[in-house]
Amino acid sequence: MEKKGNDKPTNPMVTPLLNDLYQFTMAYAYWKAGKQSERSVFDLYFRKNPFGGEYTIFAGLEECIKFLANFTLTDAEIDFVRDSLPGCEEAFCDYLRGLDCSDIEVYAVSEGSVVFPKVPLLRIEGPVAVVQLLETPFLNLINYASLVATNAARHRFVAGKSKLLLEFGARRAQGPDGAISASKYCYLGGFDATRHVLVLLRVNVAAGRLFGIPLRGTHSHAFVSSFMSLDEIVDKALRSSDGKTTCEDFVSLVQTCLAKIQNSSSLSGIFSETNKSELAAFTSYALAFPSAFLALVDTYDVMKSGIPNFCAVALALNELGYKAVGIRLDSGDLAYLSTEARKFFCGVERELNVPDFGKMIITASNDLNEETVDALNKQGHEVDAFGIGTNLVTCYSQAALGCVFKLVEINNQPRIKLSEDVTKVSIPCKKRTYRLFGKEGYPLVDIMTGENEPPPKVGERLLCRHPFNESKRAYVVPQRVEELLKCYWRGNADEAREELEPLKEIRNRCIKQLENMRPDHMRRLNPTPYKVSVSAKLYDFIHFLWLNEAPVGELH
Amino acid sequence: MEKKGNDKPTNPMVTPLLNDLYQFTMAYAYWKAGKQSERSVFDLYFRKNPFGGEYTIFAGLEECIKFLANFTLTDAEIDFVRDSLPGCEEAFCDYLRGLDCSDIEVYAVSEGSVVFPKVPLLRIEGPVAVVQLLETPFLNLINYASLVATNAARHRFVAGKSKLLLEFGARRAQGPDGAISASKYCYLGGFDATRHVLVLLRVNVAAGRLFGIPLRGTHSHAFVSSFMSLDEIVDKALRSSDGKTTCEDFVSLVQTCLAKIQNSSSLSGIFSETNKSELAAFTSYALAFPSAFLALVDTYDVMKSGIPNFCAVALALNELGYKAVGIRLDSGDLAYLSTEARKFFCGVERELNVPDFGKMIITASNDLNEETVDALNKQGHEVDAFGIGTNLVTCYSQAALGCVFKLVEINNQPRIKLSEDVTKVSIPCKKRTYRLFGKEGYPLVDIMTGENEPPPKVGERLLCRHPFNESKRAYVVPQRVEELLKCYWRGNADEAREELEPLKEIRNRCIKQLENMRPDHMRRLNPTPYKVSVSAKLYDFIHFLWLNEAPVGELH
Repeated sequence: MEKKGNDKPTNPMVTPLLNDLYQFTMAYAYWKAGKQSERSVFDLYFRKNPFGGEYTIFAGLEECIKFLANFTLTDAEIDFVRDSLPGCEEAFCDYLRGLDCSDIEVYAVSEGSVVFPKVPLLRIEGPVAVVQLLETPFLNLINYASLVATNAARHRFVAGKSKLLLEFGARRAQGPDGAISASKYCYLGGFDATRHVLVLLRVNVAAGRLFGIPLRGTHSHAFVSSFMSLDEIVDKALRSSDGKTTCEDFVSLVQTCLAKIQNSSSLSGIFSETNKSELAAFTSYALAFPSAFLALVDTYDVMKSGIPNFCAVALALNELGYKAVGIRLDSGDLAYLSTEARKFFCGVERELNVPDFGKMIITASNDLNEETVDALNKQGHEVDAFGIGTNLVTCYSQAALGCVFKLVEINNQPRIKLSEDVTKVSIPCKKRTYRLFGKEGYPLVDIMTGENEPPPKVGERLLCRHPFNESKRAYVVPQRVEELLKCYWRGNADEAREELEPLKEIRNRCIKQLENMRPDHMRRLNPTPYKVSVSAKLYDFIHFLWLNEAPVGELH
Repeated sequence: MEKKGNDKPTNPMVTPLLNDLYQFTMAYAYWKAGKQSERSVFDLYFRKNPFGGEYTIFAGLEECIKFLANFTLTDAEIDFVRDSLPGCEEAFCDYLRGLDCSDIEVYAVSEGSVVFPKVPLLRIEGPVAVVQLLETPFLNLINYASLVATNAARHRFVAGKSKLLLEFGARRAQGPDGAISASKYCYLGGFDATRHVLVLLRVNVAAGRLFGIPLRGTHSHAFVSSFMSLDEIVDKALRSSDGKTTCEDFVSLVQTCLAKIQNSSSLSGIFSETNKSELAAFTSYALAFPSAFLALVDTYDVMKSGIPNFCAVALALNELGYKAVGIRLDSGDLAYLSTEARKFFCGVERELNVPDFGKMIITASNDLNEETVDALNKQGHEVDAFGIGTNLVTCYSQAALGCVFKLVEINNQPRIKLSEDVTKVSIPCKKRTYRLFGKEGYPLVDIMTGENEPPPKVGERLLCRHPFNESKRAYVVPQRVEELLKCYWRGNADEAREELEPLKEIRNRCIKQLENMRPDHMRRLNPTPYKVSVSAKLYDFIHFLWLNEAPVGELH
């Protein structure tokens, strides 16, 4: 496998200047204080799982590593920074000019992993002024990626394994790379395909097809209404699927097929005249894509027009040896319409003796989300594929994940950030993290320990403590122990660092880890929180430091 | 003013391949049917105002025009399209190779305008296969831009004109250009500054500072906790503001000032020992930015540590002729803490006789949104500036605007898209749109007419009809008439097309138009819907076409 770490970030706008100004003001203040090279350790983590669930999918790591590998400031960028900092000394610009990430180490959970609150997703070590400049880009690259991957995984969970899930969100996404990232990370989270092209970057043509995600396409309402009548179709010939014969007038064949349906006793009751511009559009589309005919059937009326018109064209294709793909429903009562459509297809199969016609793929779209898919499941439906757009890619039900980036150690001194709100107190120290698995193979608990504590051992009893609630603790005898943080960046040195994996492998990890979770953590209603803990030693140290840093009040 | 229309899109990922695959399958099917050059007219509009409000800000136009000006497909992109379309003929690739937007016309509302549902924001005319390829990129570029500009305007409305509004969202935005677009469009919607740098694009360095938006920066909690004690500060000298003297030991001066506060009768009761690492961080930051000292005061405890420490440093700066800027609160009860902080500052002014010390700027951040700012206003607070991040840039309370792109005419034939849901029926015909103003100067109603109808005239009575509800209609005698759609693109020809304006002018338009709205449309609770109408002639035509296209059912 090729080493991919030094590729450029997917979006060329991802440079050190995709940043908060305060990272540069701080870098300047560190530099002025002579502290810029002090060795610091920061943790990147989130505090709460999104979407009312109890799990999150970690995504965005590859882009962070690409960002590190390409981290330099150009002269023009340095000029801009100088102009933005009041009283900036020229020597600081020289310092910026020499800056890169050769002194940075990044330990991270593998991309596509199931992760939980408070446990670091990344541990970043290096000169404090440089690490500070990574905060905003890293948060930006991870927050949305993880959020939308989690959203995709949740949609996959409710839709079930057997359904095809298509990502439809480009038009409603929050900007161009909201769309592009969404395609990538929805695929990672378990979607099957995207309908976006978004593949070749002009600035990075060598990358070719951007992520190798399968593409799906059909047509829109505008295509249907752009036709007026069958007379518009000039080139009516269609070669048969085996190439042996040519039907010279496919339009007539379609009309004959429509008449067959109209004359069939059990099918004819549903409709009288179908819309002719729709029939012309379907026929035209089939002439262009005879082996991939998928029609949007709700432009005028699904049961009175779209379905019979679709069946007429599908039957005509069938006579030439092609198999139509199916239909898409984009409005109305999807449970009812999909069931009625299935009945109609089965009726055609039976009455007109067309094998497998009843198995036509029914795709549903139109503002779908976890709740509507769940509701469809409860009502009963005949949908085979869901096209999900707005709610998926904008993460409509919760539009942000709150990852934070906190200093936990500097110059080997552990640091803590206090807060009135105990959930916002940071867990100090350079830490290691482990996932402990139980007898049944499920993960039981994640545990954080100090860097130099001995790792948990299989078969050995271990006390796991809630980091902030003294009464919450449990003994665990792990059957398997997995260290979570692995080195993904060590000053650009290739040795002893994890390879970045192809998207497909990351996706497989995600799917496999989700399948291996205990079901009560996964359910949509009142899921059980997964346990996150610290070692007894780390617990004691956190609370010692807390008391040490908190000011004592005066009562009068 | 320079002509900017041919600049590249801000994000280099915005190419014709930032698209739904089905736009290309349709282009192919149009081309196969010989219809690719048929002259079509599409409207881009939304159906419902976001955030429970009754207005929307239109944004994203400039990026659309830049996209048009740079629309071509490279050979590699064409190869990719060929590979994605089953059975694609080589001649279609030749067709794609020659494609540009020289035959496209775009009429649009001016960017930054207040706009309403159903009224076209853009009218796009041209060869149907080409216009179809514009749908996804245009929707992508306009949906989020308009949504976040509207969100910014709503935050400005609730905060009031006198407050400083800072955009803080880069880390939580939906991807890199979620962050970059957010900065641009929040400024457009009335924000004052961003804290993001996001300014120089490597690929487009000539553009310099990207949008010329003011920048603001301070420091984070990590900066505060990165210090351990005052002993760390090596270079303690600070030149006075006028450059005439140098204080050799600014650290001692700060300590003296802290003692002054501690010894002052009315101030000393609140705290005993302040956190020394915090004091070291503030002192260090002041040494780096003596003329721009703004401190984050909640790392340990606002009233017991952050505020006294800040005041000590601010007093020391004051003795050297500098004026501290103020503080930022990022947690806790912002109403209470801002009020207490103000009291403390006024106490210092009074007790230690420091003029204007009470006027210190108090900035608040921490998960602010429309509701929390409104609640703060009701409780009473002393906040001068709000830093708003996640809720603003991700549009948390409604993460998507549903703009659509509908065919309204082809080959001079009006087209309609029907739906079971009447709000989804499209308004057919190539149209003109006007805003009619009343006696008091407020806009009264927007009206759509057929392309060739005479325009509404000042002082002439005119019937305005709801497009779908026959009983809703009103006579209007406009005092002023403004045509809304102007030509922004005519096949790359510079003549007779509107100039793209600088962001600042667009922002001014937005602020001015919002100020000129009737207050009942603007209020947060139960705002009055603004009226949107069609001419009597267009009304009749819509309903004629509707009956014509809808299939008639059969009852048995």
